[in-house]
Amino acid sequence: MTNVAERRSQRREARRHTPVVQPGALINKLSPTEVVSAEGVELIHAASMRLLREHGILIVDYPAAAETFRKAGASVEWVDAEHLYPNGDTTKVCGHLVKIEEELLLQHLRNAPSEFTQLARNPARNMDIGGKRTVFAPVYGPPFVADYEHGRRSATLEDFQNFAKLAYMAPQIHHNGGTLVEPNDVEVKERHLDMLLAHALCSDKCFMGSVTHRENARDTVLFSEVLFGADNIRAHPATLSLINASSPLRFDDRMFGALEIYARARQAILVTPFLIAGAMSPSTMAATLAQQNAEALFGICYAQMLCPGVPVIYGSFLANIDMRSGAPCFGTPEDALALYAGAQMARRYKLPYRSGGNFTGSRIPDAQAGYESASTMWPTIQAGVNFVLHSAGWLEGG
Amino acid sequence: MTNVAERRSQRREARRHTPVVQPGALINKLSPTEVVSAEGVELIHAASMRLLREHGILIVDYPAAAETFRKAGASVEWVDAEHLYPNGDTTKVCGHLVKIEEELLLQHLRNAPSEFTQLARNPARNMDIGGKRTVFAPVYGPPFVADYEHGRRSATLEDFQNFAKLAYMAPQIHHNGGTLVEPNDVEVKERHLDMLLAHALCSDKCFMGSVTHRENARDTVLFSEVLFGADNIRAHPATLSLINASSPLRFDDRMFGALEIYARARQAILVTPFLIAGAMSPSTMAATLAQQNAEALFGICYAQMLCPGVPVIYGSFLANIDMRSGAPCFGTPEDALALYAGAQMARRYKLPYRSGGNFTGSRIPDAQAGYESASTMWPTIQAGVNFVLHSAGWLEGG
Repeated sequence: MTNVAERRSQRREARRHTPVVQPGALINKLSPTEVVSAEGVELIHAASMRLLREHGILIVDYPAAAETFRKAGASVEWVDAEHLYPNGDTTKVCGHLVKIEEELLLQHLRNAPSEFTQLARNPARNMDIGGKRTVFAPVYGPPFVADYEHGRRSATLEDFQNFAKLAYMAPQIHHNGGTLVEPNDVEVKERHLDMLLAHALCSDKCFMGSVTHRENARDTVLFSEVLFGADNIRAHPATLSLINASSPLRFDDRMFGALEIYARARQAILVTPFLIAGAMSPSTMAATLAQQNAEALFGICYAQMLCPGVPVIYGSFLANIDMRSGAPCFGTPEDALALYAGAQMARRYKLPYRSGGNFTGSRIPDAQAGYESASTMWPTIQAGVNFVLHSAGWLEGG
Repeated sequence: MTNVAERRSQRREARRHTPVVQPGALINKLSPTEVVSAEGVELIHAASMRLLREHGILIVDYPAAAETFRKAGASVEWVDAEHLYPNGDTTKVCGHLVKIEEELLLQHLRNAPSEFTQLARNPARNMDIGGKRTVFAPVYGPPFVADYEHGRRSATLEDFQNFAKLAYMAPQIHHNGGTLVEPNDVEVKERHLDMLLAHALCSDKCFMGSVTHRENARDTVLFSEVLFGADNIRAHPATLSLINASSPLRFDDRMFGALEIYARARQAILVTPFLIAGAMSPSTMAATLAQQNAEALFGICYAQMLCPGVPVIYGSFLANIDMRSGAPCFGTPEDALALYAGAQMARRYKLPYRSGGNFTGSRIPDAQAGYESASTMWPTIQAGVNFVLHSAGWLEGG
């Protein structure tokens, strides 16, 4: 037995006799820090309403969603065109372009609750999301892991199970999250089931659903019905699932397909535009915030059209690009300003807000990782973020 | 020539042809983050006024200062007593105990300017201190340095000169600071002169004065008169000097002696209680803030009694103790709350505020150093700190 393994087993033995106190979500009594004036919030709102009204959002490969918007009164047109980039390249733009008026959008948004309770296997770990509470969840989606003995390597299901147990044990982690790592040793078509099972068996905290396919979302709902009871999960959601926009101004069948399944089953939905300013959005933060607002509200509006009152979270994942190298940057002042402003926008619509985490572009847990992570976590706390994905475990820009 | 030296000379050659743009102090347009309600600010004010009125501040070995307070109308009594600690130890308390009423204190405080200009050798580098500006200065006081070739070692005058040049070159550093390192290879009695000379020869930015002895302060003033002209430095200060309280609730001859010299010469004074909560002050932050406020205002009041209108800065150096190990902690949430609250107190009296920096307890520039530093720097910026000592170069808890 190596020295490392020996010390590890000693620590494990010591822990066996120490009960872990789980204090639950952080209650943040401070007033949130605001960086945009009330007038600025209205300007961003107005700009995003103009985007939705004049430019529209493209729905790719998912006519059912376009039909839902059309029936609700939005303008829908079929687009099949070549888009010309400034450098002469072209790309095919093909899908339903949905344009929606402010009044129609807001009418549906008003049905979204400002707080909700997600069920956990252990009722003492049920999570209230919204208001003054900040809920921390682990990293979501890394394909690699690193450990002391084997260094950096492709993640496995065993890693996933271990991280699920760590999230279960850590009092600082309130919610078990979703794709803790990508279990690359399991067939893609079964992966979501293995992950759900690991969350259910290795932890008693809340977890997130699969969004990799419409059918996987359906499996998640069925799984939750078995675990919690079909009626119970209609009263309070048992899953929270991450729906990303294919920014700029686009949603695809994969994400809107999963959203539809979850919304119809009254499961909570986290709509998050994935924005690296300068790549998927303008390089100025004000314009990026308008785009983010348009995308987030469009997704939330779709969920409310499918199921009025379904719990949703207004999400923001917003970094920016290094204008010299093209690499994404984390923990910058721009990101912090956008994080604060995003929180102000979510509060304007009385929606729970997801943003922040412990982000870094560094490949190892070094000084850069330390200051970039802290530079994201401070604004996260001070903005009053309600749901924090990637609170622990992020390296290498994700 | 080693590889390192070769690369260094290449970089030096490249820099020779790149002009360094010095943009000057940060103008922070954001509203400062506030963590204490208006009522809370008044409670802290009231508690500190009670401390000054009922408990008083002890002036040790400096009867001249006690006499100044007595003449101004404060109550002064000679104290010579044994102080009994809870553990049975005793300590001798001996000096002038000064008790001062709120009205008298505030009457003198009102003479302090809310902004002032410090002269630099290069008028383009004059520093306006106060208002929306944040001025960064390097670390103050470390006895050790570390470099790539020789590791950690006792600092020398050559190191001091090199750091003075680095501060001069760095656009992020607006002010050259003071004791960049302690030049241990120079006789103590000449050290302050060598440091002043290095600041004047190696940089054209503002610098700080010596406070290690009353006579050293006098040398600093004479030196500044030679450099800037005696009349000029009465119109605008040429030095800014750091006066620490010997917390709790005590000032000594060394600090008040230097303060007196600087105040009479109209040189700017930075009055900073040096507080590690749980050691030099109560372990709760509210009580520590009241103590800090009492000590800072007492020192500032003394300066204003000596020279009405002399520029002063309300200083805060406030960390807390690890209640398990007794070691000072940096970058904690408590420190951040105190930093924000301290800024609110300084604004209440319309005084420029000094606090924050890049603090860490770590011995090397690792992840801990990164996140602790960022966890101090974020509140520093968001509190609207006007003068930031220790902006660069801090390790090992200073």
